[in-house]
Amino acid sequence: MQSFEQLSEKFTLHFDHPHFPAEPASLYEPNEYFLRLGGKRVRPVLCLMGNELFEEIKTDAWEVATAIELFHNFTLIHDDIMDKAPLRRGMETVHTKFGDNTALLAGDVMLVKAYEYLSKIDTVCLYPILYLFNQTAREVCEGQQWDMDFEKKETVSLDEYLRMIELKTSVLLAASLKMGAILGGSGERNQNLLYEFGRKLGIAFQVQDDYLDAFGDPQKFGKQVGGDILANKKTFLLIHAMESASIGQQKELSKLLNGNEAGKVENVLQIFRDCKVDEWALQLKNRYLDEAFAHLEDIAVLSKRKEPLKELAHFLVQRQH
Amino acid sequence: MQSFEQLSEKFTLHFDHPHFPAEPASLYEPNEYFLRLGGKRVRPVLCLMGNELFEEIKTDAWEVATAIELFHNFTLIHDDIMDKAPLRRGMETVHTKFGDNTALLAGDVMLVKAYEYLSKIDTVCLYPILYLFNQTAREVCEGQQWDMDFEKKETVSLDEYLRMIELKTSVLLAASLKMGAILGGSGERNQNLLYEFGRKLGIAFQVQDDYLDAFGDPQKFGKQVGGDILANKKTFLLIHAMESASIGQQKELSKLLNGNEAGKVENVLQIFRDCKVDEWALQLKNRYLDEAFAHLEDIAVLSKRKEPLKELAHFLVQRQH
Repeated sequence: MQSFEQLSEKFTLHFDHPHFPAEPASLYEPNEYFLRLGGKRVRPVLCLMGNELFEEIKTDAWEVATAIELFHNFTLIHDDIMDKAPLRRGMETVHTKFGDNTALLAGDVMLVKAYEYLSKIDTVCLYPILYLFNQTAREVCEGQQWDMDFEKKETVSLDEYLRMIELKTSVLLAASLKMGAILGGSGERNQNLLYEFGRKLGIAFQVQDDYLDAFGDPQKFGKQVGGDILANKKTFLLIHAMESASIGQQKELSKLLNGNEAGKVENVLQIFRDCKVDEWALQLKNRYLDEAFAHLEDIAVLSKRKEPLKELAHFLVQRQH
Repeated sequence: MQSFEQLSEKFTLHFDHPHFPAEPASLYEPNEYFLRLGGKRVRPVLCLMGNELFEEIKTDAWEVATAIELFHNFTLIHDDIMDKAPLRRGMETVHTKFGDNTALLAGDVMLVKAYEYLSKIDTVCLYPILYLFNQTAREVCEGQQWDMDFEKKETVSLDEYLRMIELKTSVLLAASLKMGAILGGSGERNQNLLYEFGRKLGIAFQVQDDYLDAFGDPQKFGKQVGGDILANKKTFLLIHAMESASIGQQKELSKLLNGNEAGKVENVLQIFRDCKVDEWALQLKNRYLDEAFAHLEDIAVLSKRKEPLKELAHFLVQRQH
């Protein structure tokens, strides 16, 4: 059994080579540029870990892991166009550096390349993995569309936001694990438990992300605290505040959000605290984390094999009471 | 053996249903809207014809044909964004009607849906068809990139232009036929001959398209003659004219292209005629058409089975001596 760090190092070595032909350089150099920006490669490693939970890592798992990472990068390139994001990992995004049209095509061809890797694997696993990959790819697109729709909506319910986060973020983590489980020869019940583990871990992670943006220690968090508030982004915190605040607080919150006065972040945070949004968020995160661990517990393999996944979950979502 | 018209009617009936879930409507309604705009459905029917050239049409061929048509529509949606095209088939393009971001995502999900149909087919054919589909998808993206690159280049050689047309247009026609042949259980030699037939037919078709834009009968052609000239589009005609014209004609041509004076179309056409570009284009078209037919001849099946493909080729590329 290997830890996340061990597998991450192995995957990075495996993945670190050109994935595209040299020509046309105007199309493929942007792809290679973006892949060189790196990243934690969490999703492909989840696939490898899902495999190793049940059995030694198969050769095919490296192909599937590569396909997953390319798919993830495809979504990032296209999301950056849609969000008009200038930077990714501190470097210029593809559309900023090479133009919107090339970024659009580079994303397209990245997705096709993902399918090229996927199509190499053995028959037994090809059908269930293609099925899950396609379904997940479609869901991730749906999540991105909901996210764009929500930006224009006045109010979004917690259920709607949860479903969006699930589609946009969680399902790919969950599917990565499940594809690994399929490759590891696990039974359907175990596959689905692992999927649920990943799905709920993903939600817990997003709750934490929203929490840290508002209440994180700026020095540990590594980015500006209150960025979501300044951008009027709908988050778990804001949605819960709007649902649980008094009418007076709601009015005050709306006023703050519609304006851009000095002290906006501090004033919004004060309302969050008054409504105990911070405590609520930590509870919500822990609830999803507990549920995730319960699913992992239920998987019928030796407890020892689950250690690396437990460690990773604790690392991704720090418990904070 | 069924004619193109018969199979086109059958395919249209088969294809004419919603391909996407109802929600999120903001994502999937644009997809259904675009598919409702119709089209000749040439590519999926080529797949069915490629199958029937060798054997009765398999159930799987309908899935592959559907995947091909969805793939083609994905390329159209994304190309329209890149070209900033306001209209397609006389109706608003997806990005014009629903915005660039939604069009980008709608295209993405259309491509994923194509793979969903493809993934349903039987093991024996799945690998070779996935392989060819992926390769073709990548080539079509490359063709689009070359096309965009050529717009910014001062000069493009005939060889470069030919290769771009091959990638952007021909390979999908060729691959559609070959996928049909694979499904029809044909041997590799026949598969490749059919591919070459499609590839060369595609080039002949594009030569004709460029020719008609300049020299077509406006009433029969159905669109403004000289559109390519007004848009300074690089075409077979312009590229050959630049390569074969005298230095004086070249200067005159450059001057005409860089300006937008009244009579631009007529004056460029006069140079085309002086350089005998019209005759050259008809010869080029016929050469590719002859080569296409020679490949079809070489396919080892009863000549009678080839009749529908011959008819279709003659219909698509009218012989004009």
